[in-house]
Parts: sequence; structure tokens; C-alpha cells
Amino acid sequence: MKKHIEQLHELDQQLSALTYAQSLVEWDSLTLAPKKSVNARAACIEGISTFYFNTLVNEKTDDLLRTLELNKSYLSQIEQSKVMIFRDDYDSIAKIPAKEFSAYQGLVVESSQVWENAKKNNDFDSFAPFLEKVIAFKKNYIGYLDLGGHPYDTLLNDNEKGLTVADADAFFATLQETIVPLVQSISKQDQVIFSENEKYPIVQQEKLSSYLMEKLGFRMDGGVLARSEHPFTINLSRDDVRITTHYYDNDFMSALFSTIHETGHALYEQNINEKFGLSVIATGTSMGIHESQSRIFENNFGKSVEFWKCFYPIMQELFPNQFGQTNLLNYYKGINYVKPSLIRIEADEVTYPLHIMVRYEIEKMIFEDKVKVNELPELWREKYKSYLGVVPQTDSLGVLQDVHWSEGLFGYFPSYALGSAYAAQFEQAMNKQFNVNECLEKGDFSNILTWLRDNIHQYGRTKTPKQIIFDATGENFNPNYFIQYIQEKYRTMYQKTY
Amino acid sequence: MKKHIEQLHELDQQLSALTYAQSLVEWDSLTLAPKKSVNARAACIEGISTFYFNTLVNEKTDDLLRTLELNKSYLSQIEQSKVMIFRDDYDSIAKIPAKEFSAYQGLVVESSQVWENAKKNNDFDSFAPFLEKVIAFKKNYIGYLDLGGHPYDTLLNDNEKGLTVADADAFFATLQETIVPLVQSISKQDQVIFSENEKYPIVQQEKLSSYLMEKLGFRMDGGVLARSEHPFTINLSRDDVRITTHYYDNDFMSALFSTIHETGHALYEQNINEKFGLSVIATGTSMGIHESQSRIFENNFGKSVEFWKCFYPIMQELFPNQFGQTNLLNYYKGINYVKPSLIRIEADEVTYPLHIMVRYEIEKMIFEDKVKVNELPELWREKYKSYLGVVPQTDSLGVLQDVHWSEGLFGYFPSYALGSAYAAQFEQAMNKQFNVNECLEKGDFSNILTWLRDNIHQYGRTKTPKQIIFDATGENFNPNYFIQYIQEKYRTMYQKTY
Repeated sequence: MKKHIEQLHELDQQLSALTYAQSLVEWDSLTLAPKKSVNARAACIEGISTFYFNTLVNEKTDDLLRTLELNKSYLSQIEQSKVMIFRDDYDSIAKIPAKEFSAYQGLVVESSQVWENAKKNNDFDSFAPFLEKVIAFKKNYIGYLDLGGHPYDTLLNDNEKGLTVADADAFFATLQETIVPLVQSISKQDQVIFSENEKYPIVQQEKLSSYLMEKLGFRMDGGVLARSEHPFTINLSRDDVRITTHYYDNDFMSALFSTIHETGHALYEQNINEKFGLSVIATGTSMGIHESQSRIFENNFGKSVEFWKCFYPIMQELFPNQFGQTNLLNYYKGINYVKPSLIRIEADEVTYPLHIMVRYEIEKMIFEDKVKVNELPELWREKYKSYLGVVPQTDSLGVLQDVHWSEGLFGYFPSYALGSAYAAQFEQAMNKQFNVNECLEKGDFSNILTWLRDNIHQYGRTKTPKQIIFDATGENFNPNYFIQYIQEKYRTMYQKTY
Repeated sequence: MKKHIEQLHELDQQLSALTYAQSLVEWDSLTLAPKKSVNARAACIEGISTFYFNTLVNEKTDDLLRTLELNKSYLSQIEQSKVMIFRDDYDSIAKIPAKEFSAYQGLVVESSQVWENAKKNNDFDSFAPFLEKVIAFKKNYIGYLDLGGHPYDTLLNDNEKGLTVADADAFFATLQETIVPLVQSISKQDQVIFSENEKYPIVQQEKLSSYLMEKLGFRMDGGVLARSEHPFTINLSRDDVRITTHYYDNDFMSALFSTIHETGHALYEQNINEKFGLSVIATGTSMGIHESQSRIFENNFGKSVEFWKCFYPIMQELFPNQFGQTNLLNYYKGINYVKPSLIRIEADEVTYPLHIMVRYEIEKMIFEDKVKVNELPELWREKYKSYLGVVPQTDSLGVLQDVHWSEGLFGYFPSYALGSAYAAQFEQAMNKQFNVNECLEKGDFSNILTWLRDNIHQYGRTKTPKQIIFDATGENFNPNYFIQYIQEKYRTMYQKTY
């Protein structure tokens, strides 16, 4: 058995080296790479993917995994997790023809480049043929895996193990019942909106981002903050976690809350068990759990009044013209302003799930063969009108706004909404052990971070999302915590004074 | 044969994808990666190297190369070059035990990190054990290759195909005969030295760097200028060539001439035949030829009076306090100030080869087993005293100053001196076709770039350094062009007025 276990770790090292390289290429392409670099990058990614495929998918690996599966009792928890993850990967990748698999990796590199230009030029038609190819691959992929059930289940399961269309339909129906009336009721309140004519110097915004990242617990010697068109987090290892943000000089909220959001993702990666080393288990367990970490920081903490009781003086110091004379309650209402809008990543906490529902339903239709690529812009406008009551005047503000589809990330969006729901359930569990609001008021994240590290972060992929939720909160996933949280938050916001 | 040729291109694609990834990891480590990232990076590089080794070194590849070698007449020039390069790589790598090869790749990642700290802390002892391991590997490597001749020949040959200790001894002897009296004679002249108390705002220096890069012909959409501790160039593809510089606010020359130097390297890479794609042949053919490109721009062009006849007004505009009242001749003498000093990368054009001779002789002794690692700091001081008449007070200013040894780059330094000599020979050949000085005075690099592209750049690795020199200049390498150039330059500098 010892020899087999060694082979398992060797496989892990090899595949993790390729994943590291691939992540770095992606980071680079989104932050620094020059315009004309795309062809060589696509060739590199295609090559790396071929190595990944050939290393994972072969009789030797299959035999190794089978032997280890038959001798589970000899394996540590970590070894068992590795076997399980490689088996999942194996079963999904092995069924794709090798050439098709690596050609697809090259395709998404090109396709996301094309999308970027299409969005810039409001030119959906230039992107459509690439999107068609990406979707065709995904449809083939669903066919190759042949898991039965709804075709879209396969893609949901890739992002959140075990999630089905039936689950997601029920979850979104519950959300919709709560959110639609909540939005209506808030719209009758005396909301505060920040003027778009104010200028927030970018150098001050940068100071704020760095200051808060560090305050929240980001280890600055184990990560990087950079700029990119769209904020994102990438992890090369627990000691090299990179986040980006985007500064707009007339909108302080965009960079501020995206930095807090990405810091939440980063803290998950930075606090994975150090002993895992560079390994397939040394990353977050699912998209949904990852989003729970970013959203608990962005919304539950970062948009709470307690958080700003501590940090508002910093805002007033950095932006004296804007906030020197504004009181905390007005600021708090301002950052929690609710209004149906066009752009997902700029949406408030309440209407955000409606943006997800639009995407969820469209993706479901795509994989039910109920809509063609050239019909997507119109379908998008219809859905936005029906869920949010607004209609984008251009595709750049509509169907082209997100990078995800160009990268083949179908089945991913639901995890954003799930993340908010998980976050509320985690916060409620945390509150049984200590008073979260007291920590926020002091700006002291040590208890919070310890709880997250102990219950979530450290495990990496050695626990499934369902296990994480059950072990951390003592019960299965329950969306009612989110509903209570969001209703309570807005009820008190317009009743109390602080 | 068609099938075999396809396999050759596939091998090229695979290995080039790995090389791309490895280069990007290196770029990242020197520009952005956070402090604690080193372990995961070493693991990645070790993994990538294992793939490289396993893909290149196996019976299948050996058979493929042999078949193609036996059927040369069916191959295009490009295909023949690929076969030759892979055969060279194969023969040198195949003889190293696989584990040793990939462990070494991890070692140099760690070792260069340790060197960085050792240099910062003036702590040679912390670096010594790593240097010992690197040298031990190199000695084993020489043994494995077993080429006969002087052991150091193997390392020279790796950097400049065909170069031997006998050649290098003769070359350096010729240089020494010229340079030592030249330095003495210049020291009697009325030299101009810039004050170290002046401040050159970094934002102005950045403008100058970007402006000149573009003027010299760097395609800005096919490359990047960034900052790093030590300036360098890295090429991911002809459309993604990256250079760095380092700005010091009391020394404009450092960033200015390193930018011009690295731009020379970058132009070589950016002008390689587009048809080569991402390929083993799509890069410069040798260290020596590469250095000829950086040095012809830095010294022959960038430190000529003709160049500054064109560009000096820009300097005066960017730095009015320093140069507003200084005339061109004084500026020209200032940038060409000659004085024996401690730091290679800050050395003037005349004493520079003496810095290389110190390193050349020490490396030769290392591989003749005539000096131990712990004796290197003292040997360094002795050689500097003897060649340059100066003695470093700390190891950071002495034996620790260069990154090369920490990365295993032995046999590399001589190419810097060769580069200067090649550059002079190329300039002389160019002058047979058009008047180089007239181009410089106009600041118009189109003829120069066309000549370099036609005679050198486009070929990538499809010609050896010796072929390049012969085809471009009509004769074999002749160091006398450099000697004439450098003597003539300084003779006229202190005679003429401009």
C-alpha cells in the first residue's frame, strides 16, 4: 500500500503543478498581459491541459485509484479525500475525447478575449459564434457524462456537489417570495442615495482597500492586491492568494465592497491547513461555500451598521468632503440603498438574487434546448423586465455584462445566491458562541476568523459543502436564515436610530 | 515521413507550452509574487520540469529524432532546426538522472530566494550551502555529459555553442591588452561626472523609459515594461516580450540605460519570424547574440553622441534643473564617464569587460576544483583588486552582487563581453549599407531595425551564432572591431567638440 500512496501523492504533485501554472497564466491574462499575447497564451493553455488530461486519464491512474478505493481503511482522511477528488475528476474528464478536451481549453482562452472586445464594442454578434462553440462543448460534455436527470444538473453538480435543478428551483422560489415584496416595501422608505457627481480620489480608495484587507485578516506577505477590469480572487497556494479590484473615481462603493468581497474569498484560501502543501485538496471545497465567505464579509459584516460604527471615522478622514458632515445612519442607509438595476456586480444585497435568477433560468433554457444563442439578447431583456422591471439599452449592459459564459462557466451563477444563504446560516451559528456584532463594533476579527478557520477554511476540499454546513451549524442547509436575516436587517434599518 | 513531422511539431508544442509556463512563473517571481510564495512556486517548477524531462527524454522521442535525422532531405529548414535543437537538448538532459534534474529545478528557485535575502543582509554564509548544492549539480552535470576537454567548456558551450576555455582565454587576453592602457589614458582626461546629490523624479524617468522604448521600435501592444530589483527581459512569445527596469531617484543613468539595454533584447524577440508560432525555435539563438542586441542599443547607439544630438532636448525638457544649462558635449562625456568600480551592472562600457574577466576566472577555478565556496568572497576581493584596483567592503557589493550563480547560470557571464564584441562587428557591417550615425542623429531606427531583423532577429534559433555572424558580416567573429570601436570612441571624445 505504501507504494500506492506514494504514487497518489506524486500524481497530486504533478497535477497541482499544472493547476498552479494554469492559474498563473489566467491571473496574468487578466492583470498584465499585453494585447497581442492571446495566441501564444491559448497555445500554452492547450498544451498544459493536454498534460493534465494525459496524466489523469490513463489506465495506470485508473488502476491506482481503484486499488486505493479497495483499501480505504489503510488511508488517512487526507488520502481518502485525494482519491475521491481524483476519481470525480477522472470520471468526468475521462469520458471527454482527449482532443476535444484540450481544444476546449484553448477555445475558452480565445473566447474570453473575444467577449472582452465584444463587451467593449457592444457587439454581441462577434461573440455569438464563440459562445455557440462553448455551449456545444458543454452539451457534448453533458452527453458524455450521461448522468441522467435534467441535463443542467450535470453543470450544477460541477459547481456545487449534489445540487439539482429541483433543489435550485425550490430555493429560488423561496427567495422570490421574500424578495419581491421586500423590494417593494423598501422602495416606500426614505432611502439615502450617494451623488454620482462626487469624486473619491483613487489614491485614497487604494489606501482604504489596503487598510481594510489587512484589518480583516489578509496576510499581506502571502498575497497581492492588483487591479483588473473585473474584481476576482485567484489562489496559487495558501501563501500566494491574489485579489483584484477596480477603482472608479465617482463611485467609492464599487472598489470598497469588491475588495471586502474578494478578501473574504482570500481568507478562505489563506487559512487552509498548511500541512496540505501544494495539493488538489488545498483549495475551497465548492463555489457556494466560497461565495459564503466573500458574502459574509461583504454583506453580513461589511454592510452592517456595527462594522461602520468602528470604521466610519476612517471614511470621514479619507473623504472629508463627502462624509465629514454625513452622520453614520445616513451613510449606513446609503451603502444599503436598494434599487432594481441592470448590472449584477453593482447590485445591492436585496435585488442581487434576482439577477441570479435571470441567469439561472436562461442557462436552464439553453441546456433544455429552448433558446438559441442569437435569441439570448432578447431573452435577457425580457427576463430583466419581468424580474427587475428594467431593460438594458445595450447588450454590453445586458447579456454581455458577465465574463462567465465566455469561459464556459455555466451552472456557476446559482452558487452566488447560495453563498448569501450559507453566509446567513454560518453567522447564526457563530452567534451561538460569541456576539458577532460586538466583534464588528470593535473592528476585531480574531474570534470570527478563528471560527471560520476552525469550521470551514482549514478543511479545504477534505469535506463536501454539505458536510461543512452540517458540522459547522449542526443542521442541513436552511435558506430561512437568509430570509430572516435580510428581512430583519431592512426592518430595523428604517426604524432605529444609531 | 508526414506522420513523423507531425509528431515533431506536437513535441514542439508540448515543450513550448511548458517553457511558456516556466517563463511566466519566473517573471512573476521577480516582479509581483508575495514574499511567502516560494515553496509552492518551487513545487510548481519542479513539477513542470518533470513533465519537460519525461516528454523529451524517452525512447519514443529518441526514435522520432533518429528517424528524422536519417531523413533530413525530406525536412524543411525549420524542421531540421527543430530536430537539431531537440537532439542537443536530448543529449544533454537524457544523461542526467530524472530525479536529479527536477530536484535541481526546485533547488534554483529556493536558492535564488535565499540569495536575495543574503544580498539584502550581507550574509554570504546563509547562501553558501545553496551555492554548494548548485555547483555540485553543475559538476555532476559536466560529468554526466562527459564531453572531454576542460570541464568548464561544457558550461560555456551551453551558453554559446562551440565556445571553449581556449577561445575565451584568447579573447579576454586581447581585451585586457587594450582595456588596461585605455582606462589609464582616459583617467588622465578631463572627465565629466554627474552629481549624486541631484534628484531625478521617478515619474519623469518613467516617461523617458516609455518614450525611448517606443522610439527604438518596441511594439507596445506586444510587450510590457515593469519594475524589478534587477532589470531583465523575458519572452513568452514574439507578441509578449516583457522587460523590467529599476528607478533610483538620484541616478537617472541606471534606469535609462537598462531600459535601452533590455529594449535591445526585446527587439530581438519581437522580430522573430511570426510564422514560427510558439516554438522552440522562436527565441534568440544564444546568449552572446542576445547580448549583442542589448549592447548595440545600450552602448553603440545609446551612448553615442549622434543619438543624443537627437534626444538630448527631451532630457533637457524632462529634467530642466539638471540639464537645462548643460551642453551636449558635457552630457555626452558624463554618460561615458570611465572609472573602475565595484558593481558590474553599473560599470561603464570600458571597464565592464574587466568585471566579466573576474567572474570568468573565478568560474574557471570553481570547475577546476581550485577554489571552495567559502573561499569565494576573499577570491572575489583579490580579483577585483588586481583587475580593477578596488575592493568591496561588503559581500553584498562583492561576491553576492549578481543573481546568476544562485540560478545556476555558470558559463553565462562571458557572453556579456562577447556581446559587446559582436555588436561592434555588426555595426561595422551595417555601415557598409547605410550611415548608422545619420540614422541616430535623426532618431530614425527604421533602417537599423530592418537590418537587424533581416540579418539576425528573424532567424530565431534556426541559425547558430557562428552562422549569424558570418552571414550578417561576411566574416567570422573578429574581436578587433570592438577594440577599434572603443579606442576610436574615446580618442575622439576628448578631441572633438560637437
